[in-house]
Amino acid sequence: MRQLRYCGSDTFRVFDVDSPPPTPGQVRVDVAYSGICGTDLHIAHGHMDARVRPPAVIGHEMSGRVGALGPEVTGWSVDDPASLMLSRAYGTCPVCAGGHPYVCPDLTVYGVDAPGCMQQHWLVPATSLVALPGDLDLMAAALVEPTAVAVHDVARAGVQAGDQVLVVGGGPVGLLIAVVARAAGADVMVSEPDPGRRTIAADAGLRTVDPAGVDPTVAVSDWTGGAGVPVSFEVSSAPAGLNLAVEALAVRGRLCLVAIHAEPAPVDLNRMFLRELSVVGARLYQRADYERAVELVADGTVPTKDLISRVEPLTNGAAAFAALAGGGGVMKVLIDCQAA
Amino acid sequence: MRQLRYCGSDTFRVFDVDSPPPTPGQVRVDVAYSGICGTDLHIAHGHMDARVRPPAVIGHEMSGRVGALGPEVTGWSVDDPASLMLSRAYGTCPVCAGGHPYVCPDLTVYGVDAPGCMQQHWLVPATSLVALPGDLDLMAAALVEPTAVAVHDVARAGVQAGDQVLVVGGGPVGLLIAVVARAAGADVMVSEPDPGRRTIAADAGLRTVDPAGVDPTVAVSDWTGGAGVPVSFEVSSAPAGLNLAVEALAVRGRLCLVAIHAEPAPVDLNRMFLRELSVVGARLYQRADYERAVELVADGTVPTKDLISRVEPLTNGAAAFAALAGGGGVMKVLIDCQAA
Repeated sequence: MRQLRYCGSDTFRVFDVDSPPPTPGQVRVDVAYSGICGTDLHIAHGHMDARVRPPAVIGHEMSGRVGALGPEVTGWSVDDPASLMLSRAYGTCPVCAGGHPYVCPDLTVYGVDAPGCMQQHWLVPATSLVALPGDLDLMAAALVEPTAVAVHDVARAGVQAGDQVLVVGGGPVGLLIAVVARAAGADVMVSEPDPGRRTIAADAGLRTVDPAGVDPTVAVSDWTGGAGVPVSFEVSSAPAGLNLAVEALAVRGRLCLVAIHAEPAPVDLNRMFLRELSVVGARLYQRADYERAVELVADGTVPTKDLISRVEPLTNGAAAFAALAGGGGVMKVLIDCQAA
Repeated sequence: MRQLRYCGSDTFRVFDVDSPPPTPGQVRVDVAYSGICGTDLHIAHGHMDARVRPPAVIGHEMSGRVGALGPEVTGWSVDDPASLMLSRAYGTCPVCAGGHPYVCPDLTVYGVDAPGCMQQHWLVPATSLVALPGDLDLMAAALVEPTAVAVHDVARAGVQAGDQVLVVGGGPVGLLIAVVARAAGADVMVSEPDPGRRTIAADAGLRTVDPAGVDPTVAVSDWTGGAGVPVSFEVSSAPAGLNLAVEALAVRGRLCLVAIHAEPAPVDLNRMFLRELSVVGARLYQRADYERAVELVADGTVPTKDLISRVEPLTNGAAAFAALAGGGGVMKVLIDCQAA
């Protein structure tokens, strides 16, 4: 079977390897589609080589079908459609026992600490799988994983029906947060400088603002009658985006920190103090978030067709990564893991 | 009657002025003791001249007795002991209507935007007064106002009984937060470099750590079995203190931001993301916080004797400010507003 392997500094190669049988508790998933996440891009650029150790099979956003069952696996049958929660904790530490295994300090992340999904056959623990509806298109289902992130983010931010919400950054995760927040009853504005991404957000019926064109704090002020928004999401990784997400908040507003800021970034703590603002970090998701994400993809809340910009066969994986890194309004790029 | 007036850049002068009668809705309070707050020190150093406009009567931490009632005031009698909530909003904006007048953008703060309490007779709206028990020593009662801040901070941080809590900064507010958190059932550690202040905290039965002597993150790790604390308070205004308050947190822990950081400060957002940490700003208090503070001072929870380092007459106000600014373990300095 074929594997796409990251071989260091933006280099990928296709390997042909044997497909081992699943061990006890494992399932072999025949991967249909794998999405490329921002984390995968970071890995491709070599930023995580110490942890990933190339040549490595990466990727964790996927859909597929059960190909074979290892001993002791129950509840699954061959051909069942499935997706997978990207992390696995061991369940014995206080964090796991407290109900939050996805932030366990000993987390194993598939596609980072263990082999990922950019291969034809993937061996994974059955306990990490999530069932998909039989009639759900597997291409659309490849967006369930990032949608679960968005579901978790929206819950962590405490979005309420009727809230005006600002999403700073209109990439795939920002757009998913926007549509999930809207499904929760919020009125959403997306700030995004890329015109192609803004068009996709507008086509999805979202308010948009170009932070390079107008002062987005003025746009928010006009929109909210001067009060600011009760909830903002920082999904840009840019210092200016972080500032906007703080500045846009109403008194006692809450910023949900979704993007990765590798270096400590200056935060206007005086404004946080004077207005009693909150900043909450949000990472990954729980099974309930994932199951809700399956529903939101299946019922059409997530505009999967608008979000999927391109699909490339596994053998053309390097081009898929290059397309995503190239910008120009590209949102989600999928890899077809069965096509030659 | 006598007033202490701030006259610019650490200069104070005593003025003798007429004592006007209270207007409708006003009460004349005969101020017994006024504490000096960190904000008062900022004002004294000239940092807030544009807003305060010297020569100005400053101060907002106080105890006293009702001296005269203006027309239309009900519920108060001459000689009633009272303290005062330092801010007044107008109650008509969405923030006030939402139950949070203390963070109203149009807040009037006594001793900043309106005359303060460092005078013999103070005219204030009756609605800002809070009754004190008849048997409460008025010197102790001068600590009710900063205790109300601590009550609000502890509530905003969501401290639960049994929590291990780190307070970064062992000045008056830090120590008040520590004893209020302990009264809520928490086990508290105070990080403070000043040996005199550490001694006062230790005398109050609190755990202390000298961040200049040992690595306080190691002390916290040892104390919490490596997990970190669920709640920390940043009361130091120092970048290193802010870092400690973030670093000390357990997964999904919450930092309550109490200190003023005039300039944007770098925050380890990556740690906030990875551990799903929260930072919440906390400012001032509500009437319920103030009434709880009265109880905590009256029942001896607040070690007022340990906290009051010095009392000076109004005519010696400049020395009172100088003593507080001088450090050396000085905690709270009171001004006796009736003594000549």
